[in-house]
Amino acid sequence: MLNVKSYANKAADLPMEPHAFSLEDPKSNEVAIKIKFCGICHSDIHTARSEWGPTFYPCVPGHEIVGEVIKVGGDVKRFKVGQTVGVGCMVGSCQSCSPCEESLEQYCENETVYTYNSPVDQGKSYTKGGYADHVVVDQKFVLNMPKNLDLAAAAPLLCAGITVYSPMKYMGVKSGDKVGVLGLGGLGHMAVKIAKSFGCEVAVFSRSPHKKDDAMRLGADHFILTNVEDECSKFVGQFDYVIDTVSAKHNLDQAFSFLKREGTLAMVGASEKPLEVLPFSLVFQRKKMIGSLIGGIKETQEMLDHCGKHGITSDIEMIQPEEINKAYERVLASDVKYRFVMDCSKI
Amino acid sequence: MLNVKSYANKAADLPMEPHAFSLEDPKSNEVAIKIKFCGICHSDIHTARSEWGPTFYPCVPGHEIVGEVIKVGGDVKRFKVGQTVGVGCMVGSCQSCSPCEESLEQYCENETVYTYNSPVDQGKSYTKGGYADHVVVDQKFVLNMPKNLDLAAAAPLLCAGITVYSPMKYMGVKSGDKVGVLGLGGLGHMAVKIAKSFGCEVAVFSRSPHKKDDAMRLGADHFILTNVEDECSKFVGQFDYVIDTVSAKHNLDQAFSFLKREGTLAMVGASEKPLEVLPFSLVFQRKKMIGSLIGGIKETQEMLDHCGKHGITSDIEMIQPEEINKAYERVLASDVKYRFVMDCSKI
Repeated sequence: MLNVKSYANKAADLPMEPHAFSLEDPKSNEVAIKIKFCGICHSDIHTARSEWGPTFYPCVPGHEIVGEVIKVGGDVKRFKVGQTVGVGCMVGSCQSCSPCEESLEQYCENETVYTYNSPVDQGKSYTKGGYADHVVVDQKFVLNMPKNLDLAAAAPLLCAGITVYSPMKYMGVKSGDKVGVLGLGGLGHMAVKIAKSFGCEVAVFSRSPHKKDDAMRLGADHFILTNVEDECSKFVGQFDYVIDTVSAKHNLDQAFSFLKREGTLAMVGASEKPLEVLPFSLVFQRKKMIGSLIGGIKETQEMLDHCGKHGITSDIEMIQPEEINKAYERVLASDVKYRFVMDCSKI
Repeated sequence: MLNVKSYANKAADLPMEPHAFSLEDPKSNEVAIKIKFCGICHSDIHTARSEWGPTFYPCVPGHEIVGEVIKVGGDVKRFKVGQTVGVGCMVGSCQSCSPCEESLEQYCENETVYTYNSPVDQGKSYTKGGYADHVVVDQKFVLNMPKNLDLAAAAPLLCAGITVYSPMKYMGVKSGDKVGVLGLGGLGHMAVKIAKSFGCEVAVFSRSPHKKDDAMRLGADHFILTNVEDECSKFVGQFDYVIDTVSAKHNLDQAFSFLKREGTLAMVGASEKPLEVLPFSLVFQRKKMIGSLIGGIKETQEMLDHCGKHGITSDIEMIQPEEINKAYERVLASDVKYRFVMDCSKI
C-alpha cells in the first residue's frame, strides 16, 4: 500500500485542503510514480466545482503530472525505477475499439478513463489526480519526459501542449502557414510556441492590449486587438488556420473572417455555453470548423519529443500546495502567466 | 436588341408583375438564350424582398434557367443555335484569381457576378435573371444540359442540385458511406437523390411526420423524426456526413450527435440568423463543420452529366408566370414538392 498525501475538496463549494488516502501497490502492468510537479488546468476547477456534471468527492484534480518512477509491476518493460515520466489527462481506455487501436484513446468508444474523477473498479472507486505526492498508472498511459526540459515547466505540455499540438498535426499545419491564435492563456501561449516551432507565421488575437509584449516575446509575428476594427480589417482573409483557445463566449464570425478560403478554425476552448455562428461565415469561402480533444498517447509522446527537440516548455508560476485556492481565483481572473504548477514535493 | 418580357418587382414590398426591358445582342463571347423554364429558389424571395442587403429594382430573379440557344457571338465555339443549355447562379467572375483558375468562380476573390442583382458595366447596370423569356450570358457560364432529362425538372439542378453535390464531392462522399440529410425541401430532396446515386445509405432527418412517405419514395433508407427522442437515439454516432439544408434556426448540437467520430456536417442552408453550437459537440469526437456555396462551373457541368447518367432530376410543380406571387407564399410555407418551375414560354 502507498500512503498518499494530496489536496482535495469535499464538495463543489468547499476549498481544496489536505487529504490523505491510500493506493494499492502497482499491479503487473502499472507504474507507481512519486509526483514532483503538477500543472493547474482550468478543467480542474470545472471538475472540482461540479460544473461539468456530478463530481466524486473528495476530488483530487490534476492531469499535468511529472515525477519519478518508484516501483513497477512485473510486466512493465518500458519504465524503470528512477526514470522521469509524465501522466496527462488519461490513465485508461478500452484498448480494443477502433480509436484505441489508432492510439486515439481520447475518443475511445467504450470508456476513456480520465486521470481524475473517472469511475474505476466497476464504479466502486474513481480516479484521483496529480495534486498529490503519488499516483499509480497503467504503463500504457505513462510518458517519457525529455531529459533536457525543465521538469516543472514541461508539466503543462501534458494537457495544454497536446491540446493545441494535436489539432495542428491533424489539420496538417506546416512551415510557412499562417496561424492565428485566439486568446493568450494557458492553451494560447503553447499554441504560439508550437506553431512557431513548425515554422509558421503566427498572430495572436486578443482583447487585452497588455498582452502584446508577451505575445511578441513568446514569438508571435503579429498582435491584433480584436476590439479595434482598423487592426482587424488588415488581417481579414489572411490565415490558413485559427486556433481558438477562448472558452468564454466570443465572436466566432469575426474569428472566421480572419481565415483564407477553405481555412480551418480549430476549436479547443472548452466553453460549456453555446457559441453563435452565422452559417454565411463558413459558406461564402468554404471555411471549416473542427473540434479537437487533447491527443492520443502516441501523439502525446511525439509532442513531448518535439518539445524536447525544440526546447519548448510552458511559461509557469510555481505555487506551494497550500496556495492552490488562491491560484484557482487567479486562474478564474485570467491572472496567470501562463500556467500555475504545484510543487508536489511539498505536499 | 432583344426585347425581353419578364416578371419583376419594383420594390421590396411589391409583388412580381410583368416587366419589359431590352438586352443588347450577344457580344463576341456571349450566348443569347430563349428561356424555356426557370426554377423558383428561396434565394429569389430573399433578394426580391431586399432581405440580403439592398436590391436593385426592378428585380428579375431566377437562377435555375434552361432554354435554347438562339444567337451566339463570333468567338463562341462551344454552343450552337438550337442547342439546349442551362445557366445557374453565376454569369461572370474575374477569371484571373486563384479560385477562378481552379473553376471555383463562386469563391472569386474579386467579384462573382450572380445571375441577378449583381452590378455590371461599372455599376451602370445590374444583372436580371430567369423569370424572363430571354437572357444573354458569357459562354463560360453556359452549361450543356443532358439530353435525356426532362428539361423543366432538370432546371433546379442548376442551384439546388449543385449546392448539395459540391460539398459531397469536396468531402469525398463515396459508396457505402452513411449520409444524413437534415431537412426535406428543395435542397434536401436533391441531397437524397444524389447521395443515393453515389451508393450511400441515406437517412432523412425531419420534424414533419408527413414527409416520411416522400422520403422513402425518393430513395431514403431511413426517416428520423428529430423531435422524437427514441427515434433519434438509435441513430446517434451513425453517420459519416450530415448535409444540413435547414435555413431556419435549428438544433445543430443534435445534428452533430448523429455523426461518427471525425464525421462532417456540411452547412448549405442559407440562414441569415446565427445558429448556436456547443463547442463540446465538435470537440469530443473531433467532428467538423464545413460551409459550401453552390459549386464552380466545371463542377456544375460534371454534376449535370452525373445526373444525366443516373436519370436524376428534381421533383417539381410547374407554374404559370402569373402564379409566381402565390408560389412565393407557398415556398415560405414550405408547401412545395419540391421545387416550383416557371414555364417561361408563357411569359
